[in-house]
Amino acid sequence: MITRNAPYFKDELLPDGRPAPAPLRCTAERTVRFEEVDALNIMWHGRYPSYLEDARTAFGEFYGFSYHDLYKAGYVVPVKQMGIDYVAPMRFGQTCRIICNLHWTNAARLNFSYTIVDLSGKLLTTGYTVQLFLTRDLELCMFKPDYAVDFCLRWEAGELPGQV
Amino acid sequence: MITRNAPYFKDELLPDGRPAPAPLRCTAERTVRFEEVDALNIMWHGRYPSYLEDARTAFGEFYGFSYHDLYKAGYVVPVKQMGIDYVAPMRFGQTCRIICNLHWTNAARLNFSYTIVDLSGKLLTTGYTVQLFLTRDLELCMFKPDYAVDFCLRWEAGELPGQV
Amino acid sequence: MITRNAPYFKDELLPDGRPAPAPLRCTAERTVRFEEVDALNIMWHGRYPSYLEDARTAFGEFYGFSYHDLYKAGYVVPVKQMGIDYVAPMRFGQTCRIICNLHWTNAARLNFSYTIVDLSGKLLTTGYTVQLFLTRDLELCMFKPDYAVDFCLRWEAGELPGQV
Amino acid sequence: MITRNAPYFKDELLPDGRPAPAPLRCTAERTVRFEEVDALNIMWHGRYPSYLEDARTAFGEFYGFSYHDLYKAGYVVPVKQMGIDYVAPMRFGQTCRIICNLHWTNAARLNFSYTIVDLSGKLLTTGYTVQLFLTRDLELCMFKPDYAVDFCLRWEAGELPGQV
Repeated sequence: MITRNAPYFKDELLPDGRPAPAPLRCTAERTVRFEEVDALNIMWHGRYPSYLEDARTAFGEFYGFSYHDLYKAGYVVPVKQMGIDYVAPMRFGQTCRIICNLHWTNAARLNFSYTIVDLSGKLLTTGYTVQLFLTRDLELCMFKPDYAVDFCLRWEAGELPGQV
Repeated sequence: MITRNAPYFKDELLPDGRPAPAPLRCTAERTVRFEEVDALNIMWHGRYPSYLEDARTAFGEFYGFSYHDLYKAGYVVPVKQMGIDYVAPMRFGQTCRIICNLHWTNAARLNFSYTIVDLSGKLLTTGYTVQLFLTRDLELCMFKPDYAVDFCLRWEAGELPGQV
Repeated sequence: MITRNAPYFKDELLPDGRPAPAPLRCTAERTVRFEEVDALNIMWHGRYPSYLEDARTAFGEFYGFSYHDLYKAGYVVPVKQMGIDYVAPMRFGQTCRIICNLHWTNAARLNFSYTIVDLSGKLLTTGYTVQLFLTRDLELCMFKPDYAVDFCLRWEAGELPGQV
Repeated sequence: MITRNAPYFKDELLPDGRPAPAPLRCTAERTVRFEEVDALNIMWHGRYPSYLEDARTAFGEFYGFSYHDLYKAGYVVPVKQMGIDYVAPMRFGQTCRIICNLHWTNAARLNFSYTIVDLSGKLLTTGYTVQLFLTRDLELCMFKPDYAVDFCLRWEAGELPGQV
């Protein structure tokens, strides 16, 4: 098997050669619903994208970089690639923490990695998503839109909270 | 970005050094439901695992290697790893073909790759899953269970239909 | 308990006092997915609205009264009320038929009743939905839009196929 | 249309003719996810059963009457009947309160009514569910199981918190 192990993203340098700023992090909490568990009494693997999105949504709200913020600025950021490694199963009623990290990239992309842990910190799942910037008419942006450039400038300047 | 491009799995040799048999293939068809489409009028990325599973389910029924067949034999095969590359969006009412290929491996795993195409053959999505063999008590099998060994012998002998 | 038993809708008379035309019927078929079954090995009750919608979608396509037909005419028809009576459980791999009947009403509504049966005809579920006509801006239509009036005229004239 | 309006359940008397105790109430909070919203930018009607279940789950935990409590006692309580009245649409990012009330009944049933309101108290949805008691082998209980009888005795005696 070709395994794509964490870390899912290579560290990039800034265009001027300096090291990129550390990832930005945000955490969401969620409890497994009865409906999410399958006949084996474990959460069906196809429900996890919703868990990853919960962390990404929390990230967007915390950093002013949400679906609505981007939509108002004229952009949408659909998922282009997703990968999930299932480490330990989750069960009905179990509460987990979903931690997402936005990794710096010079490309017009959003590179998120994820870790899901239980309340004792035990690793349950890792994963990643890559998102592209599109206009509202679903035209691909070859370069970071201004809204993202501004965000990255503040990130680079260390003006954003929660850096790892 | 570290991209894990298709082909997702390396070709393996049999333990005796001969080349492994060609993949086994099966296809399912499905039409996008209204509920599967999001506010952008495209299918939400988190619905695709269900589409991949449709092809896997069709495969299991066609080859006598279904959830029920394996369960009766004492095993379950949860997904350990999944990756999806979204190539072109899908819309409400669009019918697609989901093609899955089971790739030979000497390990105690099921390695499936997937291609989703529209009815004209245009590529919409690629992906892969890796499944492990567990006993019904969710204990990991380090070796292929007898049921899978028998299946692989018939595969190797060219006795299974639908090889690519 | 106050039970709302089938028949869910009272027979109406036409405005001129003649009896209303018989219901229009359409059937869809669907097989229960692994992901739809819960820890009790039966389909989770919250998945049934999707099954009812499958029959409604088939109806819309058969009669030229689909989401897209109505949207092009300027209207959407969200569900205002839904009720489901669970008669017998459904299991993974089971194929069922979902039969929907559109019942005549003089009001600006779509009144559907549903029966889900297995392939031997055994009753599994009954249900109903009531839909309203809204403009695309989600403004309520107090009267049937022209598109629906035309449809009802053809229904009344017996020009539509599949009447019960 | 035959409308089944709230109140969904008739008040019952106790077997000895005294009035039944007031309903028991519990509330859950939830925010609409991106994936739950459809092409009309409103929550798809088929997602609401999950919202009702959130309140029922919170109820079970608060009162010691959860899925796990009942399962340990030997019983499961599948939904036999469900009805939902959609009053006002919900949108992505909107937070709501789901209030459930357990209504007294002498029958071997659980009769829940629901109200979903926004954070200002505006009514969004009402609904009800009826659940039956089954053994773990899915055999119907004609009478309340002991676990439920004990619960009802404490309810009748006013020993439970949160009565309306």
